[in-house]
Amino acid sequence: MSDCLFCKIIAGEVPSTKVYEDDSVYAFLDIAPQAPEHIVFVPKTHIGSANEITAENSAVVGKIFEAAAKVAKERGFAEKGYRIVNNCGEDGGQTVGHLHFHLLAGRNLQWPPG
Amino acid sequence: MSDCLFCKIIAGEVPSTKVYEDDSVYAFLDIAPQAPEHIVFVPKTHIGSANEITAENSAVVGKIFEAAAKVAKERGFAEKGYRIVNNCGEDGGQTVGHLHFHLLAGRNLQWPPG
Repeated sequence: MSDCLFCKIIAGEVPSTKVYEDDSVYAFLDIAPQAPEHIVFVPKTHIGSANEITAENSAVVGKIFEAAAKVAKERGFAEKGYRIVNNCGEDGGQTVGHLHFHLLAGRNLQWPPG
Repeated sequence: MSDCLFCKIIAGEVPSTKVYEDDSVYAFLDIAPQAPEHIVFVPKTHIGSANEITAENSAVVGKIFEAAAKVAKERGFAEKGYRIVNNCGEDGGQTVGHLHFHLLAGRNLQWPPG
């Protein structure tokens, strides 16, 4: 856990550009943005990946989507739209072992999604 | 609501290839698959898009991710990985006005995600 990059970001041990924070969710700008707006949302509690989501911890996923809807309105791209992406495991392209959701906005996202 | 394609699919008025169902979630094969496994997860209650997720209805998003983790294990791609995508609005590429999540698996998903 102490070696988890996103746990360190949440704890302020690694710097990030914070976009949103509440009791259970933290969001920050992606350092390698793939769209004009590219924000990463993470649960403050460590969950390794989508494979580890169960009835015991799933509520925070809802909280993340609540936060994303708020951020979209605040930052002015709710109406034009956005895409939210979770990568799980190697085929999904997951690069940090802490559940996270990429929100991309500010351009027309293409299909397929990768 | 009666004009919503996904409400009709949930009600069985429009056919679909069901993958998963519980009290609050329904999942079916995408009719235009973008990966060897391409499953669409929807809440049974009508929510128009991610913009409409609030504290009152967000729990079902967690339920959808619980369902996805179960389906990934059952169908044997949990370990290799997968991507889950929500499109909101025109920039996101949303084509049906009922909140839904695309799960893609069975190939190495690329970056950026569209």
